Amino acid sequence: MASDISPPAPASVAAPATLVGQHQLYTRTRLATPADVPHIHKLMYQMAVFQNDTHLFTATESSLASTLFNSPPFQSFTIFILELSSYPLKNIHSPAFLPVERTVLVDHETTDPDAETFKSSAANEDGDHNVTVAGFVLFMPSYTTFAGKPGFHVEDLLVRECYRRKGFGKMLLSAVVEQAVKMGFKRVEWSVLEWNVSAVKFYEEMGAKVLSEWRVCRLSGDALEAYGDIANC
Amino acid sequence: MASDISPPAPASVAAPATLVGQHQLYTRTRLATPADVPHIHKLMYQMAVFQNDTHLFTATESSLASTLFNSPPFQSFTIFILELSSYPLKNIHSPAFLPVERTVLVDHETTDPDAETFKSSAANEDGDHNVTVAGFVLFMPSYTTFAGKPGFHVEDLLVRECYRRKGFGKMLLSAVVEQAVKMGFKRVEWSVLEWNVSAVKFYEEMGAKVLSEWRVCRLSGDALEAYGDIANC
Repeated sequence: MASDISPPAPASVAAPATLVGQHQLYTRTRLATPADVPHIHKLMYQMAVFQNDTHLFTATESSLASTLFNSPPFQSFTIFILELSSYPLKNIHSPAFLPVERTVLVDHETTDPDAETFKSSAANEDGDHNVTVAGFVLFMPSYTTFAGKPGFHVEDLLVRECYRRKGFGKMLLSAVVEQAVKMGFKRVEWSVLEWNVSAVKFYEEMGAKVLSEWRVCRLSGDALEAYGDIANC
Repeated sequence: MASDISPPAPASVAAPATLVGQHQLYTRTRLATPADVPHIHKLMYQMAVFQNDTHLFTATESSLASTLFNSPPFQSFTIFILELSSYPLKNIHSPAFLPVERTVLVDHETTDPDAETFKSSAANEDGDHNVTVAGFVLFMPSYTTFAGKPGFHVEDLLVRECYRRKGFGKMLLSAVVEQAVKMGFKRVEWSVLEWNVSAVKFYEEMGAKVLSEWRVCRLSGDALEAYGDIANC
């Protein structure tokens, strides 16, 4: 995994040229809680901006809060949050999922224009609250019929713009896949835009197969609501 | 809906030419229960035969029974069973989902080579147990992020060979869509093989859009299990 990078040389040793300007980040992938809804809502909106779909965005903090946390983790909709800090993170109590912690090196300290907006409620070991929410992944159980076993479907994955191309997307997706294996699940699936060649390549490098023959059918909007009229006949 | 066909003219009236040989069937779409597992297992195997994938079929009655009924209906994996009888069906108690009953006309009485195997435990109004399980649909909640609302993902739908091309597939899928509308869900999605032109046409006629740009990515088998090794490092 790209995130499994060795720690930097101690400060007393001259850093090799490749480490000049490198910056250490402490990362944690943990279960979201209802307290994360304001951040989740903003991240989802950023996804709508990225996809030029803000006109379709009607989700509210209230609609998310009332629909996302009604089942124990992994039994229905589940969200992992990715947090970053320049200092080691304090332990958090999370019996349903032991947070995945990694230390990574990035090329230089990231300028985060939305640092204040995405400040996490978590603290690092210095009691400092400069912990940032950098992304999320939303997933839920699917079913692998021929195996007679569950799997996971990944609905959304977002890493905030200023933290992209540093291996964090892979970190979030890997956390979902590792959880699937741990639970004896047999499949993890998600969708990708076929013209997004770099994303396709990235997923293939993670071991995924792109199912070229299958297409997603979607019934929504007025076409969906029309079935309500049929049911009421 | 194709299943909403008027009843035939009374026997005392000469039947019009188009009704000669037509046969009335009573249909019911109801929630599956653990008692249906033997039938569900056989239907899933028929699906593997249909897709030339029997070498991938490792599901057992036991794996299905232990994974499919762990949550209340519609909160996780949910199965509707389609039953048919030549006589009106007896009412069944099903508080979580009022079964959808329809009377349909088919061109002639169907010869069902597996009638004995797929005999339902349900009885018709005569107390006769000649009620047949003809198909199933397996679905589960998905999430429509931009709406901040759940939806349904349809994983599998099968109508047994001898009952195809009579509107029963549409009947099963419509029951899922109607339930989605009833629950305030905003989307129903499923996958189709792009070269299956008649299926694509059928779904489009039902109001679905085929998302031509999206591809499904799947991580399974050894590529999936490898993430267990990473997690254990």
